[in-house]
Amino acid sequence: MIGSNDTAEVLVQALPYIRRFSGKTVVVKLGGAALHNANGAGSDLDRAMAQDVLLLKSVGVRVVLVHGGGPQIDDFMRKVGKEPEFRGGLRVTDAETLDIVRMVLVGKINRDLVSAINREEPVGVGVSGEDGGLLTAVQRDPDLGFVGDVTHVRAALLHQLLDDGLTPVVSTVGADAAGQPYNINADDAAMAIAVAMGAEKIVYLTAAPGLLEDVDDPDSLVHRLTSAELRDRIADAGISDGMIPKLRACADAVEGGVGSAHIIDGRVAHAILIELLTDEGIGTMVWKAA
Amino acid sequence: MIGSNDTAEVLVQALPYIRRFSGKTVVVKLGGAALHNANGAGSDLDRAMAQDVLLLKSVGVRVVLVHGGGPQIDDFMRKVGKEPEFRGGLRVTDAETLDIVRMVLVGKINRDLVSAINREEPVGVGVSGEDGGLLTAVQRDPDLGFVGDVTHVRAALLHQLLDDGLTPVVSTVGADAAGQPYNINADDAAMAIAVAMGAEKIVYLTAAPGLLEDVDDPDSLVHRLTSAELRDRIADAGISDGMIPKLRACADAVEGGVGSAHIIDGRVAHAILIELLTDEGIGTMVWKAA
Amino acid sequence: MIGSNDTAEVLVQALPYIRRFSGKTVVVKLGGAALHNANGAGSDLDRAMAQDVLLLKSVGVRVVLVHGGGPQIDDFMRKVGKEPEFRGGLRVTDAETLDIVRMVLVGKINRDLVSAINREEPVGVGVSGEDGGLLTAVQRDPDLGFVGDVTHVRAALLHQLLDDGLTPVVSTVGADAAGQPYNINADDAAMAIAVAMGAEKIVYLTAAPGLLEDVDDPDSLVHRLTSAELRDRIADAGISDGMIPKLRACADAVEGGVGSAHIIDGRVAHAILIELLTDEGIGTMVWKAA
Amino acid sequence: MIGSNDTAEVLVQALPYIRRFSGKTVVVKLGGAALHNANGAGSDLDRAMAQDVLLLKSVGVRVVLVHGGGPQIDDFMRKVGKEPEFRGGLRVTDAETLDIVRMVLVGKINRDLVSAINREEPVGVGVSGEDGGLLTAVQRDPDLGFVGDVTHVRAALLHQLLDDGLTPVVSTVGADAAGQPYNINADDAAMAIAVAMGAEKIVYLTAAPGLLEDVDDPDSLVHRLTSAELRDRIADAGISDGMIPKLRACADAVEGGVGSAHIIDGRVAHAILIELLTDEGIGTMVWKAA
Amino acid sequence: MIGSNDTAEVLVQALPYIRRFSGKTVVVKLGGAALHNANGAGSDLDRAMAQDVLLLKSVGVRVVLVHGGGPQIDDFMRKVGKEPEFRGGLRVTDAETLDIVRMVLVGKINRDLVSAINREEPVGVGVSGEDGGLLTAVQRDPDLGFVGDVTHVRAALLHQLLDDGLTPVVSTVGADAAGQPYNINADDAAMAIAVAMGAEKIVYLTAAPGLLEDVDDPDSLVHRLTSAELRDRIADAGISDGMIPKLRACADAVEGGVGSAHIIDGRVAHAILIELLTDEGIGTMVWKAA
Amino acid sequence: MIGSNDTAEVLVQALPYIRRFSGKTVVVKLGGAALHNANGAGSDLDRAMAQDVLLLKSVGVRVVLVHGGGPQIDDFMRKVGKEPEFRGGLRVTDAETLDIVRMVLVGKINRDLVSAINREEPVGVGVSGEDGGLLTAVQRDPDLGFVGDVTHVRAALLHQLLDDGLTPVVSTVGADAAGQPYNINADDAAMAIAVAMGAEKIVYLTAAPGLLEDVDDPDSLVHRLTSAELRDRIADAGISDGMIPKLRACADAVEGGVGSAHIIDGRVAHAILIELLTDEGIGTMVWKAA
Repeated sequence: MIGSNDTAEVLVQALPYIRRFSGKTVVVKLGGAALHNANGAGSDLDRAMAQDVLLLKSVGVRVVLVHGGGPQIDDFMRKVGKEPEFRGGLRVTDAETLDIVRMVLVGKINRDLVSAINREEPVGVGVSGEDGGLLTAVQRDPDLGFVGDVTHVRAALLHQLLDDGLTPVVSTVGADAAGQPYNINADDAAMAIAVAMGAEKIVYLTAAPGLLEDVDDPDSLVHRLTSAELRDRIADAGISDGMIPKLRACADAVEGGVGSAHIIDGRVAHAILIELLTDEGIGTMVWKAA
Repeated sequence: MIGSNDTAEVLVQALPYIRRFSGKTVVVKLGGAALHNANGAGSDLDRAMAQDVLLLKSVGVRVVLVHGGGPQIDDFMRKVGKEPEFRGGLRVTDAETLDIVRMVLVGKINRDLVSAINREEPVGVGVSGEDGGLLTAVQRDPDLGFVGDVTHVRAALLHQLLDDGLTPVVSTVGADAAGQPYNINADDAAMAIAVAMGAEKIVYLTAAPGLLEDVDDPDSLVHRLTSAELRDRIADAGISDGMIPKLRACADAVEGGVGSAHIIDGRVAHAILIELLTDEGIGTMVWKAA
Repeated sequence: MIGSNDTAEVLVQALPYIRRFSGKTVVVKLGGAALHNANGAGSDLDRAMAQDVLLLKSVGVRVVLVHGGGPQIDDFMRKVGKEPEFRGGLRVTDAETLDIVRMVLVGKINRDLVSAINREEPVGVGVSGEDGGLLTAVQRDPDLGFVGDVTHVRAALLHQLLDDGLTPVVSTVGADAAGQPYNINADDAAMAIAVAMGAEKIVYLTAAPGLLEDVDDPDSLVHRLTSAELRDRIADAGISDGMIPKLRACADAVEGGVGSAHIIDGRVAHAILIELLTDEGIGTMVWKAA
Repeated sequence: MIGSNDTAEVLVQALPYIRRFSGKTVVVKLGGAALHNANGAGSDLDRAMAQDVLLLKSVGVRVVLVHGGGPQIDDFMRKVGKEPEFRGGLRVTDAETLDIVRMVLVGKINRDLVSAINREEPVGVGVSGEDGGLLTAVQRDPDLGFVGDVTHVRAALLHQLLDDGLTPVVSTVGADAAGQPYNINADDAAMAIAVAMGAEKIVYLTAAPGLLEDVDDPDSLVHRLTSAELRDRIADAGISDGMIPKLRACADAVEGGVGSAHIIDGRVAHAILIELLTDEGIGTMVWKAA
Repeated sequence: MIGSNDTAEVLVQALPYIRRFSGKTVVVKLGGAALHNANGAGSDLDRAMAQDVLLLKSVGVRVVLVHGGGPQIDDFMRKVGKEPEFRGGLRVTDAETLDIVRMVLVGKINRDLVSAINREEPVGVGVSGEDGGLLTAVQRDPDLGFVGDVTHVRAALLHQLLDDGLTPVVSTVGADAAGQPYNINADDAAMAIAVAMGAEKIVYLTAAPGLLEDVDDPDSLVHRLTSAELRDRIADAGISDGMIPKLRACADAVEGGVGSAHIIDGRVAHAILIELLTDEGIGTMVWKAA
Repeated sequence: MIGSNDTAEVLVQALPYIRRFSGKTVVVKLGGAALHNANGAGSDLDRAMAQDVLLLKSVGVRVVLVHGGGPQIDDFMRKVGKEPEFRGGLRVTDAETLDIVRMVLVGKINRDLVSAINREEPVGVGVSGEDGGLLTAVQRDPDLGFVGDVTHVRAALLHQLLDDGLTPVVSTVGADAAGQPYNINADDAAMAIAVAMGAEKIVYLTAAPGLLEDVDDPDSLVHRLTSAELRDRIADAGISDGMIPKLRACADAVEGGVGSAHIIDGRVAHAILIELLTDEGIGTMVWKAA
């Protein structure tokens, strides 16, 4: 049992955060790898994640979930006899692949996440970037096919859903003005959404403790750094390839007006609550020096 | 060119309907067969359908689209090497089939319809029956697997989206309280949604002119009948098997409080506008005798 | 019977206009001559006019009627033994004439128009320019007696009546700050009202098809011209004296911010609907080049 | 100069009345005779009357004026060579007479009263019982022609005008459902309006001090009596014929729910203020015993 | 009995003032001396004062009372064996004195005034300058101890109470940011409150008729002067010491934006009503020349 | 440092309570003894109490403080040479004592509590039961003098202050309809306020851990019992005299509709937070069996 001093300390710490975040928007990005590791939408970790989202919602925080799904797309492509192909780390997306991307992201992963939320409380709603013109995109490079970059986010759509008491779960497929869909990188899309919504925070749930001084030493966590310091480190050697786009997105987010960006360990139960409601936090926080 | 007398007549007829329907809800069910015949989401008919929906929306009608997708599910199952199986006209749905149903309905057909709308005006949003607890379902028959019947519709969710200026496109997958998804017949789901929303009208867009006195004579259209008369006819011979569930749903809808139910020909451009805004109409209208 | 293609074409044309004009203000000026020709408030044309106004109202257009009454004033003056007198086309208005003007306009013609509306739906309300300070006027020329020019329109008064679901019918008698009433030209007053209300359109219902290239050829209608082109033509010979003040008022209106001005044939039933809700229109439209 | 004790006494008396009447409706009936005596809309008495109305309005009282005009109609009929004819005290009203009634009431007397108000503050608006279906009427007796009784008052119309900050001046011409206008007794119409509006008070401005015990002794004023007592007196001899309809209307008003009815002397300046804001009052008050 | 002419004159004068002051704020300062003279909260004068406040409130005036209490503090100090000490007319206030000041002002005089109001209508609420940070103060001079000057007034707090239908009675104890309370001069505090609230008027109820030309001649009242003229007179000889701070506060108030400042005789019943609602007034009015 | 598991556990427990209590009213009674023990308004315990109140306020809980002050009144009476006298545990209150009660409660203790709150955030406002008719009282027993029982609580007054973002601190002096003040027992007044406000909870901060099985064993705390069980125990021997009125008030409160009543130890820092936001709590909770 926890002593009354400790209890009081946690509460006295947490309440001002709750007050401060109430009415504010927090975008939480769930990585495809994390989902994959988490072994399906029914796991305890998924349940703790859904609880965190709903507990924050219950005290007035406006949470938006954004998800990717690279590994699951790879699996499904192979199932229908198609080999995934990448250039410069990006998936080459022909028309058939695009259909598979939409089916896996919108028709499978998004469904599983909405189910995880709705098993607790029926407020989760799936939204694709195509819905209501949420994510406007342009083609990045003809050689990559239907891979797009976000040029506009219709943030009001998500705010309306939040105003209606719903929790949006966003699949990152966008479309251009002519209605052509595009596959969009989820880390970038989450950042663009957070900036456009005027979010207080963006949180990347990953399969790592955060940014480490020494990638081999899990105790070498960097708790807090500015976006400028972060950009210096990105240039350093010794950062894993998968982490670099997230770090760039964190720097872009805070420089775009988001209050802070967080990289935390999706493998720790209730990591979101601990990061947001304690002074210490649990992962790496990026902020913009005044 | 149309003469001024004819023009005046159409307008003088249409305006009172527009006034009467403004602020009212109209549920439009698009059959999988119709979609199949229409040869993909880019056809002229799909475009005319999307225009009708948006024109009605522009004068204050609250349109909800509901779609099925049987033929497309069959195709996809065969593509991944699985043979569709039916009992009593209903698809036997095991866990793997359910995943395919969700992927095809939510990840493919719904996407195509949303695209058709959004190519005209970016207000279409896909919604699955699982989202925000829209369609609560119970298992119909263990032998059929994950096939469900609607027990509750959270109509407020659709009304909120309409209030937000959006046009919902609904895939008819539901879930029970424990979060288990179910495949639901789209004709029935559309009827349940119309009843729960207090809709003024439900319109079934089919691949036939409406209810025919003589199924072989397209000029034998029944323009108007009561639900009691309709139930009498359902018992008659000579009605096609595919039409019977729609006719039942029409009778159920008007007896459940919907103002009128319509079966119209989805192969005629702008059939929705003509049915709703002229005295004559274009298909069969079912109403409830006082 | 009109074919479904034609019906669809009229509807597809009309609905965007309805959307665009919904919530907008349209001022309709009814000429004394037109009223005179129409042979009293009970004629079919008056009824079609009242229907047009109410149909537009039913889809959200805010219609204001403004009327004149020169011929009727002449008749009544002669009835009480007084000969009408004009200088430069304007009625010399002594105190006794002013009393007659008020009695004929407010107590007779306005009453008949309100009755025509209210026989369809009891929403017509008569308003004189003196009511609530609607039309502030100054004397034009001492030699003309109580003939005034509008210096201020209290547009809010008409907007309030429209907000209350009523259709104002305006008699063009104004008053100065000291409360002295003045007789005001109805074409000018209608224009001033449209400008002050921020109207989308002003429509002059006349006893001619519109502006004609050749006044003797009714097929030589000018469908569309800019206010600059219109001012050039006013200088031309061959325009009837009665038409010139209307043309000037049209040019003044669009240059004062009204979206467009229309001269249409009040002798054609439902001319207002046809002019406003079809691409082709029925009369002459004046607009301001960008 | 008035002493501070007297001043304080008047103020201490008046403020609770002002508080009590603020937001309440008061209907003031101006008799044609009173208007006639007052010698036109520009007299000092008319000005004091207009000031009383506007002062009450300024402290939140919702004042509606209702006027008659018998003597003025008589004069005008004779002017156009038509002799007034009465049966049982009521004007026989053929179609031509009806047109004259409308022209005199709506086009002349109403205009003069609106001018009297607007010379002080431009908030007066003329309203005829035909406008917006204000007074629905039925024919009283075919022998009387177009003489009507009020069957319905659309009180909301007057309340809307009051809500808009305007002061309605009502001419008592009504219409039946088919749009046929009728001449209506103004004392009765004022009573029907007060009842329908849920008025706090109805005030009849007359050419007498109120109800007198002895019609020849102006000091024999009855200050206060119940509607039951009033009905007893109506049966008595010695009440002038012109007063009887007013007394009946007073009894009908309070029995119909109006808080109190007052008969006061329109020949005393500011009689309305004195009657409403002092304990003593100036005329006769009729109330309903609990 | 007052004649109808006089009654009408008072009412016609008063109503425009009532209209003008409705919704406006009036701060009334009650002097300790006046309270002392008035011989306790149960006197007729206190009752007339409470009635004035409530009558004004009933017609929409937002009245705030501010009180002092010097003589009562002196009395109580002596009762607990402590001799009052003054420097430059200001009370030397050590910690013990401060406690007594709070107990007398907040716990005694404020209570008595609230009781006087609530005996008429239970809307009086006591407020100390410490409540809700109403009066922020800084120490004036270390030699005076806890004597403060107002640096900020949280006017919104009083406006909220007024919006809630309550009548605030303010004791002039303030506090600094660290929560240290200070004794504040009530004349100055009332002025600061009036300025911060954007008051229309401030009224000082004193034991004198107002400002006199000749202090020995009560008929030599100055009815009206500008703040500039007032400042000139303050420099003159022959003004009583007790009056000077009030006169300075009056000049400061109007120069700070208050519409006018009034010094009136608290010994005349209903002096507040007479001063505010008649052309003549009863005391001295200070205004700011344009 | 507290581990992440413990932190998560406290947060996961606390957030649902916060959600449940947000928008609800909690009445906290501070005993005079507790205040006395706490050694003045500047102590650490007072500061922790003020922080608890403000933290709860920050997450939407509507906290009302109610205080007593028996020991402080005794002290002050002796200071001015008057010996406190009690009958049946109640203070005999003559007029002079009543004045002292008001001065000590309203002018001293209330002030100190408001200061304690305002040192953290300037939202505390003192309110006496006399203000705005908050506590209506009747005399309990002529032998006790001005000792009253609450007959009515004007709860709307406190709700208005809470709506305005303020934290009311209530002194328990009431008044009867004639304005006579009465001294009221603070435990009873707090209960009456909680019942009238429809409070979710009432919390008694005392100088004991709660209700003990064995008064000599501080570990024998009763965590939870129903009001029926509580009434049984009150009859038992071994309960301290000072505790009995609080226990009765707890039973009365929950039977009057308050969700639960709590007796907790005011000597433990942040006891309010721990009691309200953890499953275990810290004191004794009384509830009403269904």
